[in-house]
Amino acid sequence: MPIGDQVHLNGQIVPLSEAYISPLDRGFLFAHAAYEVTAVYNGKFVDLDGHLLRLRRTLDGIALPNPHSDADWKRIHQELIDANGINEGLVYLQVTGGAYEARDYTGPDTFEPTIFMYADTKPLIGQAAQRGIAAIFMHDTRWARRDMKTVQLLSQALAYRAAKQARADTAFLVQDGKVTEAASANAWIVDEMGRLITRNLSADILPGITRSGVLRLLDKTGLEMEERAFTPDEALNAAEVFTTSAGAMIAPVIMLEGQPIGMGKPGPVTRKVQKAYYEAIGADVDSVAPWVLA
Amino acid sequence: MPIGDQVHLNGQIVPLSEAYISPLDRGFLFAHAAYEVTAVYNGKFVDLDGHLLRLRRTLDGIALPNPHSDADWKRIHQELIDANGINEGLVYLQVTGGAYEARDYTGPDTFEPTIFMYADTKPLIGQAAQRGIAAIFMHDTRWARRDMKTVQLLSQALAYRAAKQARADTAFLVQDGKVTEAASANAWIVDEMGRLITRNLSADILPGITRSGVLRLLDKTGLEMEERAFTPDEALNAAEVFTTSAGAMIAPVIMLEGQPIGMGKPGPVTRKVQKAYYEAIGADVDSVAPWVLA
Repeated sequence: MPIGDQVHLNGQIVPLSEAYISPLDRGFLFAHAAYEVTAVYNGKFVDLDGHLLRLRRTLDGIALPNPHSDADWKRIHQELIDANGINEGLVYLQVTGGAYEARDYTGPDTFEPTIFMYADTKPLIGQAAQRGIAAIFMHDTRWARRDMKTVQLLSQALAYRAAKQARADTAFLVQDGKVTEAASANAWIVDEMGRLITRNLSADILPGITRSGVLRLLDKTGLEMEERAFTPDEALNAAEVFTTSAGAMIAPVIMLEGQPIGMGKPGPVTRKVQKAYYEAIGADVDSVAPWVLA
Repeated sequence: MPIGDQVHLNGQIVPLSEAYISPLDRGFLFAHAAYEVTAVYNGKFVDLDGHLLRLRRTLDGIALPNPHSDADWKRIHQELIDANGINEGLVYLQVTGGAYEARDYTGPDTFEPTIFMYADTKPLIGQAAQRGIAAIFMHDTRWARRDMKTVQLLSQALAYRAAKQARADTAFLVQDGKVTEAASANAWIVDEMGRLITRNLSADILPGITRSGVLRLLDKTGLEMEERAFTPDEALNAAEVFTTSAGAMIAPVIMLEGQPIGMGKPGPVTRKVQKAYYEAIGADVDSVAPWVLA
């Protein structure tokens, strides 16, 4: 889906065709930038507070000042979806170290960030959620601080390309014999007892906002869960597998490395998680996702 | 030093003030870009063939087509230093995955790269080479493919900032108890027998062009060398320590973690390497670096 024509650049809403940055921007030269992607559903942001908290943590970790208060960020997010008339979709936000007259690793004592944001319309409860997706395994080549959401995303881009070549939709990244997460989502398995298993938080994975949203729904779903790393073999032999992310919310994984997971279709636990999550964001499950009730 | 006013952008020489890229460029969104920095000395490029070979390898590794033949790259490099009247300095070259209408990890089957280049005047045989530099140790947090020269440089930027805070000039990166390399240079030590030791090539380090330039001079210098990883302790207790890079060529490291190395000044083996390297690039050592003869 192309990006909404009105984007935000350093405090102003401008047409995308007029949005340019300097090639000396530290986001371009050094991948010195934080980003967030927040879902919009029914005209409302899904856990924008969670995204803004994680943004603060990433900025702290990469020596960038937070250019706005949370209240200002919220206003800017709202302005952007209003300008583009977006009711369901995503808002992308990137804060970089800014541009200076020379390429210098160290940079100034205090950075003057560049801010770029766009919004686009996208069905969040779509085909991936309904029918499920296929994944492959890939060696996780990312840097050591995956808990910070930075634009050092080359490993992920290459993982998606490898997945496409294998006629899959995404990749599960593997390090030291354990799955870390999916290429741009947290990875979950469901064991034969119906328990959810997802990797515990550490510098090895992104602390997913949708991941924590699902954790908050455990009481409601009555599901049990365990936070620990799991192996590719456990995933291949799991009853169910799914991913969580802001963009695809809860996506059943029905095929791993060409092998069907469970019955080769979205399973009942995944459907239960989807239903609880869709209800939590205010969706009318009956009409937008009747298949989760089937 | 500010950047030369004339830069290269996608086939044209334009003023820096008119050079802009799209915020949807994959170099900006995903760090999907290769780069090279080539030294210019006495109006001549230092081992441009080596840089272009490494560029091809990086581009191959990150799924980008090489937009130019080596002959064209050489012509473009020459045009850029001519346009800026540069006799001694550096040419920076970056090739990205290009900009598309949406932010999509996978991207098109074949990328249409963005090319950005600038040149600047810089003394290559300067204060660092003469007096030496100070370094600290830092945990190496970089991604797994440091043999590819990409703009995933956030670890390096943070390492330089930590070094500055510790009143040092650079950092030696350490992984699994061994030095990988310096923040933007290869790391070398000299043992008590006067032998050079630098880490063997692998995915753990960048295959430095200046590094291989120094290796080619071993016959001339009569020095012996060993290619293997060394520990921080070995560096601290080494007779001499130095780094190699295109930008600073051979830089003596006279202080590590606040402790003087050897006599706390550039040592005779480092001076011998400097002399051989400067001669190889056509420098008149007597006049530009008389201190290496002292």
